Amino acid sequence: MIDLYYWPTPNGWKISIALEEMGLPYRVKLVNIGAGEQFAPDFLAISPNNRMPAIVDPEGPEGPVSVFESGAILQYLARKSGQFYGQTPRDQIAVEQWLMWQMGGLGPMAGQAHHFLRYAPAMEPPHDLPYAKDRYRAEVARLYGVLDRQLAKAAFVAGDFLSIADFAIWPWASRWEGQDQTLEDKPHMARWLDLMAARPAVQRGRAVAEDKRGDLTTDKAAQAVLFKR
Amino acid sequence: MIDLYYWPTPNGWKISIALEEMGLPYRVKLVNIGAGEQFAPDFLAISPNNRMPAIVDPEGPEGPVSVFESGAILQYLARKSGQFYGQTPRDQIAVEQWLMWQMGGLGPMAGQAHHFLRYAPAMEPPHDLPYAKDRYRAEVARLYGVLDRQLAKAAFVAGDFLSIADFAIWPWASRWEGQDQTLEDKPHMARWLDLMAARPAVQRGRAVAEDKRGDLTTDKAAQAVLFKR
Repeated sequence: MIDLYYWPTPNGWKISIALEEMGLPYRVKLVNIGAGEQFAPDFLAISPNNRMPAIVDPEGPEGPVSVFESGAILQYLARKSGQFYGQTPRDQIAVEQWLMWQMGGLGPMAGQAHHFLRYAPAMEPPHDLPYAKDRYRAEVARLYGVLDRQLAKAAFVAGDFLSIADFAIWPWASRWEGQDQTLEDKPHMARWLDLMAARPAVQRGRAVAEDKRGDLTTDKAAQAVLFKR
Repeated sequence: MIDLYYWPTPNGWKISIALEEMGLPYRVKLVNIGAGEQFAPDFLAISPNNRMPAIVDPEGPEGPVSVFESGAILQYLARKSGQFYGQTPRDQIAVEQWLMWQMGGLGPMAGQAHHFLRYAPAMEPPHDLPYAKDRYRAEVARLYGVLDRQLAKAAFVAGDFLSIADFAIWPWASRWEGQDQTLEDKPHMARWLDLMAARPAVQRGRAVAEDKRGDLTTDKAAQAVLFKR
């Protein structure tokens, strides 16, 4: 059974949602980032970047294997399960393009937006930086415009099939309000957000360890790590 | 022959270096980001995120295909050429982990460091924000520490074989000085930077349209786009 090293954040949800959608059995190992558990030496051996999510698959190729970085975990699980990577080489290209767009664009930029809009102004002393707030709010708005135009063309992000690109993008996109965004001019993105949110497997993946999330709203150390990037 | 939509920046170099190392014939189509050419409608059809690099391969699977996002282009080219993705499924996992680490971590964070350390303070009016400078300088230093520890274990980033992860990481890492970093405590990273820089194909890829780079040091509009993220 796959061990999922996890804490309830957008990057963690990518993998809990994917595992639920794929029907792969897994066991959750909580990595309490508020308590600094991501810096423990045994976790470093699995995830040299000191970040969750990570997985250990005892039935990996040629024996047990660990995988870190959410994008790499999604590619691994899609290959293992034979699902959500499309059917053809052209589908695969489409999935990879949008997966990379999430990894290199939406994820980091939405993370910076959360940091400068929500976390930094609440620090002691506060760091309320209009230039940085505007910069990331505007970049996330641009990215959601790109996503909306793509979703005008097809049901899902990579085309008319559900893929790991949707699992990567939905957790961050679903938190658009915290990023000071609007959906009023993005009807296609709004449709897709609802379509994804209605899937039972998405709901199960999103709910994993949700009871721990309360800590994050009050725990400054956890917020510092969570919104670091 | 592959068309490479390109401007001489770290993300562009990833692909020119990969094409040179793979020995794939290609033709450079300059996308002058200073002149806003990335917003032209015909380029948008290839790269819906309005960013270079992108490629068009007339001999793609089932016909001509375009690919955007540097990480997705690297995966596509590695599959096409059958090179630089390792030999085994475990190698593939290692390559993808470090490719994603570059796409989601080093690339965006080094980009923010360049923005707040170099570009924003030179704007009119200047935006010189110590909190943001410290934030990204420190995060890039942390990431280079992770890279140095990884390179203590093997010759190249993903193991004892050259891969697309090296092509993704080297262009950003080679610019460590502009990110206010030091190599004094990172001997393994320093060794690898030199090893990569000595490769003739890396030198050829790095040199593509280098004569255009001068524009960027003086052209504010180009810098604004280049360091946007």
